[in-house]
Amino acid sequence: MIRHTVVFRLKHAPGSVEEQSFLQGGRALADLPTVQRFEQLRQVSPKNSFQFGFSMEFDDQAAYDAYNVHPVHEQFVRERWQSEVEDFMEIDYIPL
Amino acid sequence: MIRHTVVFRLKHAPGSVEEQSFLQGGRALADLPTVQRFEQLRQVSPKNSFQFGFSMEFDDQAAYDAYNVHPVHEQFVRERWQSEVEDFMEIDYIPL
Repeated sequence: MIRHTVVFRLKHAPGSVEEQSFLQGGRALADLPTVQRFEQLRQVSPKNSFQFGFSMEFDDQAAYDAYNVHPVHEQFVRERWQSEVEDFMEIDYIPL
Repeated sequence: MIRHTVVFRLKHAPGSVEEQSFLQGGRALADLPTVQRFEQLRQVSPKNSFQFGFSMEFDDQAAYDAYNVHPVHEQFVRERWQSEVEDFMEIDYIPL
């Protein structure tokens, strides 16, 4: 199992229509064939400046790679992520 | 539900006895009364420099607060975390 997470901050005003539209657009990632346990999360620790997180799990690296190159993922990155995300960090976990 | 996560890098050499001892010590946190779904994880993304993660869930803020002030947690922070962790970031999530 590989858990892929990304924590991020949007350029949009909190609570704005644009923010909701971005999150709604991201839900399409949940339906990609190798994605499991997709979650959209709100980041609430005051110890960092990120606002949201996406988390998903893959069976193995091949499943992760298939997600990365899936046209729906690539389109989301190109058309939404690159222009609407102010800052982000990717963290990937495997069981210890 | 609040998911508390911390991603970190140790001062110890990878694979060292000291690294294993630190992780073993951290397992005591899993048994604290309000901690659920405790996980020790290896961070594998090359896009950040952290090595490990702990993840746990709490029913609510009161359960999280009880963990924070529990003597076993405070002892672990004071006797292990503060001297053996080189860098870390806390990320807390709630469902969106």
